[in-house]
Parts: sequence; structure tokens; C-alpha cells
Amino acid sequence: MTSPIEAGVIERHNASLRADHEADFHSLGERLARRGLDADALVDKVARFTVAVPSWGTGTGGTRFARFPGPGEPRGIFEKLDDCAVIQALGRASPAVSLHIPWDKADPAELKERADALGLRFDAMNSNTFQDHPGDPNQPLSYKFGSLSHADPAVRDQAVRHNVETIRIGEAIGSRALTVWIGDGSNFAGQSDLSRAFDRYIESMKRIVEALPEGWRVFSEHKMYEPAFYSTVVSDWGTSLMAAQELGTKAFCLVDLGHHAPNTNIEQIVARLIRAEKLGGFHFNDSRYGDDDLDAGSIDPFRLFLVFNELVEAGERLDRLEPAHMIDQSHNVTDPIESLIRSGAEIRRAYAQALLVDRAELRGLQDEGDALLASDRLKAAFRTDVEPLLAEARRRAGGAIDPIRAYRASGYRARVAAERPAVAGSGGGIV
Amino acid sequence: MTSPIEAGVIERHNASLRADHEADFHSLGERLARRGLDADALVDKVARFTVAVPSWGTGTGGTRFARFPGPGEPRGIFEKLDDCAVIQALGRASPAVSLHIPWDKADPAELKERADALGLRFDAMNSNTFQDHPGDPNQPLSYKFGSLSHADPAVRDQAVRHNVETIRIGEAIGSRALTVWIGDGSNFAGQSDLSRAFDRYIESMKRIVEALPEGWRVFSEHKMYEPAFYSTVVSDWGTSLMAAQELGTKAFCLVDLGHHAPNTNIEQIVARLIRAEKLGGFHFNDSRYGDDDLDAGSIDPFRLFLVFNELVEAGERLDRLEPAHMIDQSHNVTDPIESLIRSGAEIRRAYAQALLVDRAELRGLQDEGDALLASDRLKAAFRTDVEPLLAEARRRAGGAIDPIRAYRASGYRARVAAERPAVAGSGGGIV
Amino acid sequence: MTSPIEAGVIERHNASLRADHEADFHSLGERLARRGLDADALVDKVARFTVAVPSWGTGTGGTRFARFPGPGEPRGIFEKLDDCAVIQALGRASPAVSLHIPWDKADPAELKERADALGLRFDAMNSNTFQDHPGDPNQPLSYKFGSLSHADPAVRDQAVRHNVETIRIGEAIGSRALTVWIGDGSNFAGQSDLSRAFDRYIESMKRIVEALPEGWRVFSEHKMYEPAFYSTVVSDWGTSLMAAQELGTKAFCLVDLGHHAPNTNIEQIVARLIRAEKLGGFHFNDSRYGDDDLDAGSIDPFRLFLVFNELVEAGERLDRLEPAHMIDQSHNVTDPIESLIRSGAEIRRAYAQALLVDRAELRGLQDEGDALLASDRLKAAFRTDVEPLLAEARRRAGGAIDPIRAYRASGYRARVAAERPAVAGSGGGIV
Amino acid sequence: MTSPIEAGVIERHNASLRADHEADFHSLGERLARRGLDADALVDKVARFTVAVPSWGTGTGGTRFARFPGPGEPRGIFEKLDDCAVIQALGRASPAVSLHIPWDKADPAELKERADALGLRFDAMNSNTFQDHPGDPNQPLSYKFGSLSHADPAVRDQAVRHNVETIRIGEAIGSRALTVWIGDGSNFAGQSDLSRAFDRYIESMKRIVEALPEGWRVFSEHKMYEPAFYSTVVSDWGTSLMAAQELGTKAFCLVDLGHHAPNTNIEQIVARLIRAEKLGGFHFNDSRYGDDDLDAGSIDPFRLFLVFNELVEAGERLDRLEPAHMIDQSHNVTDPIESLIRSGAEIRRAYAQALLVDRAELRGLQDEGDALLASDRLKAAFRTDVEPLLAEARRRAGGAIDPIRAYRASGYRARVAAERPAVAGSGGGIV
Repeated sequence: MTSPIEAGVIERHNASLRADHEADFHSLGERLARRGLDADALVDKVARFTVAVPSWGTGTGGTRFARFPGPGEPRGIFEKLDDCAVIQALGRASPAVSLHIPWDKADPAELKERADALGLRFDAMNSNTFQDHPGDPNQPLSYKFGSLSHADPAVRDQAVRHNVETIRIGEAIGSRALTVWIGDGSNFAGQSDLSRAFDRYIESMKRIVEALPEGWRVFSEHKMYEPAFYSTVVSDWGTSLMAAQELGTKAFCLVDLGHHAPNTNIEQIVARLIRAEKLGGFHFNDSRYGDDDLDAGSIDPFRLFLVFNELVEAGERLDRLEPAHMIDQSHNVTDPIESLIRSGAEIRRAYAQALLVDRAELRGLQDEGDALLASDRLKAAFRTDVEPLLAEARRRAGGAIDPIRAYRASGYRARVAAERPAVAGSGGGIV
Repeated sequence: MTSPIEAGVIERHNASLRADHEADFHSLGERLARRGLDADALVDKVARFTVAVPSWGTGTGGTRFARFPGPGEPRGIFEKLDDCAVIQALGRASPAVSLHIPWDKADPAELKERADALGLRFDAMNSNTFQDHPGDPNQPLSYKFGSLSHADPAVRDQAVRHNVETIRIGEAIGSRALTVWIGDGSNFAGQSDLSRAFDRYIESMKRIVEALPEGWRVFSEHKMYEPAFYSTVVSDWGTSLMAAQELGTKAFCLVDLGHHAPNTNIEQIVARLIRAEKLGGFHFNDSRYGDDDLDAGSIDPFRLFLVFNELVEAGERLDRLEPAHMIDQSHNVTDPIESLIRSGAEIRRAYAQALLVDRAELRGLQDEGDALLASDRLKAAFRTDVEPLLAEARRRAGGAIDPIRAYRASGYRARVAAERPAVAGSGGGIV
Repeated sequence: MTSPIEAGVIERHNASLRADHEADFHSLGERLARRGLDADALVDKVARFTVAVPSWGTGTGGTRFARFPGPGEPRGIFEKLDDCAVIQALGRASPAVSLHIPWDKADPAELKERADALGLRFDAMNSNTFQDHPGDPNQPLSYKFGSLSHADPAVRDQAVRHNVETIRIGEAIGSRALTVWIGDGSNFAGQSDLSRAFDRYIESMKRIVEALPEGWRVFSEHKMYEPAFYSTVVSDWGTSLMAAQELGTKAFCLVDLGHHAPNTNIEQIVARLIRAEKLGGFHFNDSRYGDDDLDAGSIDPFRLFLVFNELVEAGERLDRLEPAHMIDQSHNVTDPIESLIRSGAEIRRAYAQALLVDRAELRGLQDEGDALLASDRLKAAFRTDVEPLLAEARRRAGGAIDPIRAYRASGYRARVAAERPAVAGSGGGIV
Repeated sequence: MTSPIEAGVIERHNASLRADHEADFHSLGERLARRGLDADALVDKVARFTVAVPSWGTGTGGTRFARFPGPGEPRGIFEKLDDCAVIQALGRASPAVSLHIPWDKADPAELKERADALGLRFDAMNSNTFQDHPGDPNQPLSYKFGSLSHADPAVRDQAVRHNVETIRIGEAIGSRALTVWIGDGSNFAGQSDLSRAFDRYIESMKRIVEALPEGWRVFSEHKMYEPAFYSTVVSDWGTSLMAAQELGTKAFCLVDLGHHAPNTNIEQIVARLIRAEKLGGFHFNDSRYGDDDLDAGSIDPFRLFLVFNELVEAGERLDRLEPAHMIDQSHNVTDPIESLIRSGAEIRRAYAQALLVDRAELRGLQDEGDALLASDRLKAAFRTDVEPLLAEARRRAGGAIDPIRAYRASGYRARVAAERPAVAGSGGGIV
């Protein structure tokens, strides 16, 4: 297995931090033991938890106003895979990559080979019918007025075919799921028939479901708004659930943490979808205003913890669902590799904290109506600094105790900046 | 039939406005004719559309901070019915009243007799397990920590029994539906198990459904928050739909216009519930911030129109559902009778405007992707001043051309203020 | 004066609609007369009200996900001016254009000459430091981490110089104001020092104010979020007011209708800024979710009316302020010319409706605490269909009774589509 | 000094926890020392930080739907003071109480004497013109349509007199500030003149400011909505700032954490008010939807931390302002004493975490545009479990290591429940 990070970097880095880390891990272990928890068992659980990184997340993101690229932007899927390998080498939380078609289109055999060489595998595939792809012979018709729900059956056919093609690529590289997010909707009341648009979406999705190989799942991803600003065809989890119900046993709902109305209690949506046996997976990120796509846990870390609290609480009910964990973020002002390493760690942090909750005790307090102690017990888990558990999980897997520091020490970014030509800062002119 | 409004009042009032009204109706008729619409047919449709008033809406509402009663507050259900009869006599849009138990508990035979005498009938019944009713022997246990979803089965039993009792009263007075809104939820993360609480709600509701007489429906009413401020068991339409699906063919979802997250596209929820064949009815009101319970159409009249646009658009699909139309408002600074008369008219206004849309033309524009003209056609219907149609519908039914003015001329409020003792302005001390 | 619209088009179009229009205008006049209002006087007032169009609004807008251009996109400022002349020729509400530098950079003399020939003039200038302009020798430093508030004084200098250059261009073409909107802010708590960033903004703005010619004003435009998603330096009207106060008598606040938090009462902000004598002007548009930049009046027409109600209510206090009226919209799914014609009309509609309010009567009802009648009087003005007044104002000024229909009849879009090469649908890849 | 908690309770409780606490404090001290921080110095700083409790917070709160009292509700201000003494005895964070007039009206000498005996003092006074107080001879006129901004000067006079009376009581008991929160606003567009209402508010406040004794401050407290649902006279910090500017050097702005629009960045408002030298103080609580008045730090603990981050960051600039720290919460489902003890601790927790930030390092990262490390350093402070510091600060001051557990062990609630008659669960009937 090749690695874009020189072997000695992590070793030297860890050696320099070892003493302090061991002291912290030991002291945390003692405190946890007092609560009846075994630090080593927790490290094992954390180590088994992974989250896929999005190929498109390795490039600098932007807004409709501008994009400000950094040095060493990956120029194609193979350079993106290199970057993903760096993330995994240091953070050890992200062995899988989620591809976006047509952005990442390439020979499947080469993709597979390159991923194998880097020790990566492929998670859910993402199709793209929210953009036109000028020059693509497979897309003669525009998605300006919709794709899977377009009024014109020819556009719907084209969009269905694109999704089927995405599945086929995924099949060839070992993926097992397709995530469908469409931008279909309308900007004006009256522009679109709210009911018929949804009918057409369902009809198109049925054809995609029919094309799914054995063992595959499809995730319908809802979003409140953007790019459409009056109505969106799949705008909320209720609509997503209706779709998954009609589409049958291979169809599930995907929860992106930034796709909800203001003030929404997202963890309760997670609980509802588990109960409906339709929770398919997550797009992790954080946000304050809209679909801000910020780094997971950066705006409201308690919310992220509460989502994981539901997942841990669900216990065996979740085993049947095996939700897919993916990151979906836009890294506008940071080095994307750093943000993805950190986000993997933040997601694991929320999981680790949720593991600390004494479920039996909590249930007892809930049943007694002891709101104060019940909430305190949950908060106590959240405010436990589990960093030593995360670091130990990384260390044992060959990763870095402090992966950001190790990454900076590695000189990777400077090296690829020298190899990859600079991209001009784009001034979109879209306001 | 007795009427609390002297017969001559409306007659004299209408006579004084007749000439102007006829001119306006005629001129509007000409403009509508140019668009291929028949004013008389529209008046007929409008006249057939009615909306139930809530018994509790006849008293002055308030907030947790204070309630400022007006003169002549009704002291019980029979005086409330008198006030409802005034609303109907003048506005002719509200022949039915929706009761709230135990607030309106009384001998069913007397209720029926009084309503008959006033020319009123009873719409959906409302149960109440969001409050404790001190001294009520049927409610020994507190709802502080929930009702239908309470952790304690004894509390759930009590809440179910209360709902069954409410159904029985409704049966005796000719109602055909039960609206269930519960305040169950939690104020702290951890206080309540989000999944088990919903399981218990479903289990309790199943027992209520079993108690429904033939031909009855039950409406589950969701609400984002308040009185619970962290989580609410039935918080959104997705949860309400899951409930209605599990509860079977008698269970439907009720949409209160003020119970949604900020920025929510309510008309699309209406469209989705029609498609799912689970739209049970509406609680009409308006709001800007939360469940403000303001007068229908007072904050965002275009939104109210768009809801009716979906209802008219649904056409025959809606005939099977026959959604219940009810007002649910809190009249804090107005004479409740005036607000309810006006709200009935505003709701009819939205309906009348929606009737003006040329559905075939709109569909054509939608299919062509002509966003601008499609939205303009819809807006043209909205900006048509249909007041003469509404006034004519009232007039033909024996109501007032300008019902607020006629009400003020009637002296009703002063008369009941003399009969009904003043209520002290309450300073709740709940902040 | 040259016009891109053939003279006979409007004439023929108006002739075909004349009879119906006159009947409608006459009948509305009668109804207004009954309320003591003179239709001709209203037409005059409406005709005097104009709103500037943004040069950038003539091209198809988009989102970070995609932009779907239409046929005949203008390739530069001169073609944009042609399109603006069409808007004015038909709608007669927009004799002025607002430029954006560097997008519209050109020889000022040529700009002036072309505008004169088309019968247009220039409204407020807009600077742009929210994007990098690759290849521009005046912008060697990146705005990735801010512009006027950047931690590095060299970047601030550069941004100040750009604003001064924008003023100079404006001076040469007859503009009298500069609008400053910056995207400065941060995506993470901690990334930026919230206080020092504002200090630096003020310091930079002081230098811009010093560069303002006699008689010029500068508008600070606040926005809650986007492109920054954790904090924004000038995020709300309170911050904008603090800035305008510190910057002195030439500095004012600009209100963009889509730049506020959810549920905000915008008309009250307008009232506050009038009282503070700091209302500089407006960017009109409409929105439901965020800075959606939809067509004015398309989402919440009542809100637009209420803004104008404050302007009319302010009366003479406003005369001193002379707020600038500009449109700022993103036309993603319509022909931009059509949207801008319509938006000008919608803005005038709101103004015309506000003129109908009997201010003395309203004040009396307010002072008596007659909430119901006060709100009804306001709503009565809003629901008056003033289209005949708007059409007559256009007609008398040489414009089209139905400008959208006349525009379509003119064949302008097809003509420019033949002249201007098609632009590829961009797939930004920024998600 | 009398104490409602038996002396031995805390002693015995602390003894039982001593060993573990000392181990935790020691181990935290070592980790902090590695970051250059001195645990003892931090304990001292934390110990000096206090937050006033609201007298009204000792009773169970509620909503417009219901209030569910617990056992042993305090019946008047003297029993409330007893409860406050318990909070302080155990938590040692709240030596001061904030009174609400007329709710807490009593002989000032008796109030002072009782507080002295309990070791308490009085923080800012709160007036109340958002309710009518039936039977109060000082309030013959209703506040239904406003108080300080009422259209009728007689009502304004009455409201001003009430505020002056509140100041006089405060003077007699050693308070130094008056907090003015009014519910004035409107429920309908048109009901109120947005500008004149604010003019009248300013005029009334000027008279209150004139009545302030030497050394006193007045805090204007803004709130977005509730009890008014269309407009609120003092709705946002911009309005509050305008008021404080006009009212002069004794007038400041109070920030209640729950009184903002959805998604608002509150810490930036704090930074702005510090810069404007107008930050008067805080009402601490937490909320997700509106003015939910939940326990501080229970919904979004990171947000609370970020507010304190601004306070610590402001450093000496804040010394001149000396903002008042008060809790304002509604305890609907918990024992109010427990919630207030916990909230005091949560507020101190946020303060303690903010003290951990290396300001020089952070500033350096900010100036370099190192968004990732800057945000990580801040997050590292937040995720440090400072509970041992808080416990040690309590312990050294004579309080309880685990104050909730000690409180439960004390039997205080059961004892007062036996003395104080049960209050009936109120069913407001306000919906």
C-alpha cells in the first residue's frame, strides 16, 4: 500500500506527544472507571466507527459570490483520492470515499486500482442532475426547470439514465448505495404544480430503484431550499419518508444536518426515521443559517452529540438499518484536508460521548419525570473531554495523536502545491 | 329560530349600502366576465364554503404574561353560543361551532337544543390533556409530564378516557370528528425518550380510534413547540403522517397554519397530505413568529391564498377527503366577535381568489416552464378585489354587506356587557 | 434618442388594449372617488416614483450549484444598457441604472454617451471586494479573508483604493452615491475577532467617506449571512446604524429586503432608520428563506406594501432623506428583462396602494386602540387592485399598458439572441 | 446569619465526595499547568463571578396553556428569599436577588432586614407594566394597548410613576439599577404607528431616567416578540441602542439570550454593545424556538461559552461597563431551586472555559487567517471539563461539591412543602 504521507512523519510526531498522551489517557481511564466504563472498550468502539469523505470536499468550496482556491487544489479524481488517503493515514476515521458523477467520472478499473493501492474503498455514489454539463453528449437537455420531476418526459428519461449510469459505475468499484439529491423546485408560486412535480419524481425514482443491483440501497436526500427558493420537491423529511415508503424496501431517507428549517429538532427526526425503519444515512456538517456546509460540530457541537445519542440509544434497532455515515461540507476558508481530518474526529467525538451515557440510569430518570437529573446525566457525558480516547484510537490504528499538527509537519500541502498548478480565484459574478 | 341580533339591524344596514354595493358587484362582474368567469356562479360557490368557529375564540385570549379581557366576556358555553350566533347572523360563513372539553362541558341535550334554536351545529370536538383541571374527579393525575405519551400507564389511561368522553359528548350533539392536540414533549434533552414517547402516543391513540363511532374521524394536530420547548411528541407533519398511517382509515392530519417551523412552505404540506389521502382539516389563523394565533390573513394574506390555491387545484381528489375548516385564533386586542366575523370573510376571500385562476392556462404555462407568466396569472387572481363577491354571498344569505359595521350598529356588545359581569384583568405572573 | 424597441410596437399593443384599460381605469376612478381619492393625482404620483435597475440583473443569475443562462445574455455593460433601455421603454419605471465595478468598468465618457442616447442615467455605484478579480493589476491581494476589515492593512488599502476608483467612475458618469456591501466575516467561532474586525471596517470606511465628492452619499448595506456563515461584520441594521453614525453626515444605511433574520419586521427597521435620519435607500427583492433575491413582491406582497406604508407615512421627514430606490435581484429562471419590468411595476403597486390609506382616519383609529378597524383600513388599501393606475402611468409616459405582453410581441429577445453568442450552462462544482 | 439549610448537610455531603473531587481537581490542575494555566488562580476568578437570581424564578413557571406547580411553592417575597438563600448556600454563585414590582412589593426595611439575615443583597429592580394589576389603586388604567408608549398620556404617566416607585423601593433596599422591559407593541399591521410609539417610549423613559438616583443605571431590554405578535416597540438591539443613546449616560442595553430572531449571532451583539459602551447586562437563559426561558446552557452550551468569550476578550473595556449578570428563566418542569443552582453553575462553567483561551495565541492565528487552528483553540477551551474548578470554588466558599445532590439530601423541599399549602394546577384557558 502506497501512502502519500512519509512513514516516519507520524511515528516521529507521535513519539513527541506520547508521554502527555499516555498521562491523559490514563487519567481519563481512571475517571471513566469510576463511572463503570472501560476506556479500552470505548477505544475499540470508536475505532470501529468510520465516516466516508466526499471526493468533492477535497477542493476548496465557495458561494455564489466567489470561490477562493488554496494552493495545491486537486485537478481530478485521482488527486482527490491522494488527498483522501492523507486524511485517512492521519485520522484513521475515513477509509471510504463518496464519489460524485460526472465530476469524478473515470475508468472504473483504474479507480478501483488506485483506491486499493491507497487503502481506500468507495461509499455511496452521488448523481448530479442539478447542473448542466456542457459538452456532455449524455446530457443534451437542460435541467434549468428540473430533472427527475421535470414536466418534459424526455428530461426525466435523461436524468434517470444518468442515475442508472452512476449506479453502474458504483457497481464496478464496489459501492453499495446511491444518494439522490435533486435541486428540483420552483422560484415562484405558480411556476410549478406542487403535486404533479412530486408524482413525476416518484415515477422517475421507481425506475432508478428498478435499476439497483441486489444488495444496493437508494437514499433520497431532502433539503428545505436552495437552489430553488419558493418550493422544493423533496423539501423535508416527511416528503422524503413518503417517497421511501412508495419506493419500497431498497429506498431510505438520508439526513443532511444542514437541510432543515430553522430551529428544527434534528435528533427527533433521526428517531422517527429509525422507528419507520427508513433511516438510510447522514451527510454530516454544521450550520447556523441555511445549508452552510460548515465543519461538523463547529457551530453547535451539542446538537451533533444529540444525534449520536439517538443512534446509540436505538441500539439493536439500528443494526438492521446500518445507516451510512458521510461528510458533506464546503471548505471555503480552510485547507480541505485539515477540515476533513478534524470533522472525522468531531463526529467520532460525538459518538464517543454518546457511548458514555448510562442508558439504564437515564431511562429510570425519564420514567420518574426527573427532568433535571436526566438532562444533567446527558450533559455530563457531553462535557467529558474524550480527546484521549480519540487520540488513542488513531494511535492504535497507525494514525497521528494530533493529526492536524502531524499533517502540517508532513509538508504534504506544499509538495502538491508545487505539482498542481494554481487555480485562479474565481469571481462568479452570480449575485 | 331566535337570533341575538335584532332583525331590522341588518336590513337597515344593507339598505344604506345597497347602491354602492350593487355598483361594485356589477363592475366586478363585467371585469370577471372578460376573463370568462361568472360572478353569480362564484357567489354560489363562496356561499357554500363555511368555516367553523371555536367556542373558546369568543373570549379574549392572552399570553403567559397577561390577559386583558374586554366587556361582556361570555361566562360559559351557552353565552359563547350566543356570540357564535351573532357571528353567523352577520357573516353567514360560520354555521358550526367547535367545542373544547372540559371547558364547554354541559348537558348534551341542552347544548343541542340551544344550538338548534340559534341555527348552529357542532363541528369537530377538541379534547384537552394539556392542562390539569383541579377539582375534576375524572382527572386525579397530573399532565405535567405528558398525557397520551406519559411514561406512566395510569396517566395514559386517564387521558384516553377523557378523549373517549369527549367523543361521547360529540356523538350526542351531532359532531363527527375529534381533534387531538397534546402538549406532550420535553424541555430538556434527555428528559424524555423521543422514541418511546411516540410509541406510547401511538398506543394511546389506537385506543381512541377504537372508540370512534361509525363515520367519525380523528385528526392528529402537530405543532413545532410550545408548551414544550426542547422536543414535542407530534412536532411536524411527518410525525403526524406516520401517526395517521399507523392509526388507520379513520385517522387524518390537521394543519394549523401557525404550527410550523419558520419559512415553511405550508401549501406544499397541504399538497403532500392530499396526495397521501390524509389531509383531515385546518385550523386557520395567521402568524409571523410562532403559534401567534392572529386573525387569518392578517400577516401574510398571500400565503392563505396559496393554501386555498392547493385546495382548489386538488379538485376531485379533495372531495373524498372533505377536510374540516376551522378557525383557531387568540383574540387578545380585538372584540372576538369582530375578529371571528372578519376571519371568516378573509378565509372566504382566499377561496374566492383561488376560484379565479384559469387552471388549464396555468397548467400550460407550468409545462412550458414559463415561470414569469405562471406566477403572474396566480398573482392576478390574488390581487383581484373580490370583496363584492363576499358581500353579495352574505347579503343573499341574509347577512350584512359590511358585517363589522352592522355589528357595531347593533349594540350587541354593550348589551351583553351590561348582562355579563366584568372579568378582572388577569396578571398571570407566569414569565 | 435611440430605442432598442421599435416605436410602433408599443403603440399597436396599447391600441389593442385601450378600450378595456379605459373602462377599468374609469371604474376604479369612480370607486376611488367614493373614498375621496383622485385617480389622476394618483397616476401623477406613481409616475414620479422610479426605481433603478441593477446592470448585473440583466444577466441570468444562479446559485453556488449552477447557473442556467438564457438566450441573448448581454456580454458587457453596453449590451446591459440596451436591455435596461428596453425595460424603461416598456415599463417607464426605471430611468436609472446602478453599475457594479469592476464588472461594468468601461470608459466613462462612452458610458455616459451611450446612456444619454438611450435616455438612461446612472444611480448609485457598487464596489466589489467580495471577489478576487484574477488578472486585475489593481487587485494583487486576495479577499479570501476579508477586504475593508481584513487583518492586513495592505489588503484594506487595496479595498479602499478600489472604492475610491468606483467613486471616481461614478463622478464621471453622473452618479451621486456609493453602495458598499462587503462579504467580510468568518465561518468559525474564533476565526475572527468580532470587535477588531468592525474597528477596521470603520477605519477603512472613514477613508472612503473622505474621498466622497460634494453632494455624494455612501450607503452601508448590512446582511445577516452569506458568504460568511458564522459571523458577518456588517450583519444587521444595528451595526449598520453604528457605522453610519460614526462615519458622519454623508453615511447612510441601505436596506435590502432579503438581508434580515427570519421573521424580522422590516418595515419597523425602515421606521427606525427614518427616525435616526439614516435611511439611505433600498435594494428591493423578495425572499422566503435567506437572501433569495427573488422578484419584488413575489413571495410576500403584503410585506412590500407595509414598507411603502412607512415611507408614505413618514411624509416630509422622508423628503430630507430622499432614499435611493434600487432593485437587487437574481433572475435564475425567468427572462431578466421581464422580471425587471415586472418588479418595477410591483414596487410601484405597493407605493400606489400605500397612497390610498387615509392617514388621518388611520391615526384616529390607532389613538383609540381600534386594532380591528385600523388593520382593516390598511388591508383595504392593500387589496385594492391598482393595476389600472399603474397601466395609465405607463401609458401616459409612452410605455406599454401590459409591458410583458408588449415585450414578447417586440421580438427583442430573439433578436439579441441572434446577435449575442450563447453562453454555456455553467456547472460550478461549488457545493 | 440564618440559613435555611442545616449546617451539617453540606459538610457531610462534601466529606463523602472529597477524595474523588481532590483527585479530579489535581489531575485537571496538571493538565492546565501544561497549558500554562494555574488552577488556583482560575478558582479565584470563578469564585468572584456571581449572577443574580430572579425572585420570580423560585416559583414554577408555565405557558399560556398551563402551569403545573410543584410542592412547596413560595407564597410571597419572604419565602422566595428563603429559597434564594438555599440556592446561594449550596451553589455560592448567587448572592444577589433581582426583585419584580409589584409582585415583590413589601416594606423595604423588612426586605432589607430579611436579606441581610440570609446573607443576600438586591440586584437590579424590575418594573411591570405588561400586566394589569386588578385592585391596585396605583393602576386605574389598563395596559392592554401599551404602557410607556401608549397613545394616551394618562397611561404613560401611570407607567412612568410605577417605574419611579420601583426605583424608590430599590433605593431603599440597596439596588443600583432598574431593568425596563415592556410588552408594548401591536398584533396587526396598522394597529399602531411604529414611529410615534417609539417617540412616546423615549419620552417616557426620559422621565424615568430623570428619576434615577446618583450612581444608578437603567437597562432597556429588547425582545423580538411576545406578548405582541406583529410589532414590538423595543424589538431588537438596534432599537435598544437608539434608546440608550438618546437617554444618556445612565442608560444601557440589556441582552436577554432568548429575545433574538432565529439564527442570530448573539455574541456579536455583545461585542457591538461593548464597543458602543452601552452593554448594561444580561438575562441568562437558553432557548431553541423563541423566548423559551429554559435553563442556561441546556440547549446550546457552546453559544453561552461564546458570549463569555466576548466578555473575557473585551478585558479592560468591560471594566468600565460592569455589566449586570442576572438569570431570567421559567422553570416549568423542574424544582426551581435545582434549576437555579444548576444555571448558576452553567454560567460559571462558560466563564471558566473562556478563561482558558490563550488570547495572544488566538490573536496571532486570527491575524494569520488560520481559521482552522483559531477555531480549534477556542473549541479546546470549550471542551475542557472544568467541573473540578467550579466544585472547588463552591467548596472553598462553603458550598457543596455537588449542590444538587446536597440539596436533595437536605430535605428542604419536603420541609417547605409541609409548611406551604399546595397550589392548584392552573388551567389558564388562554389558548
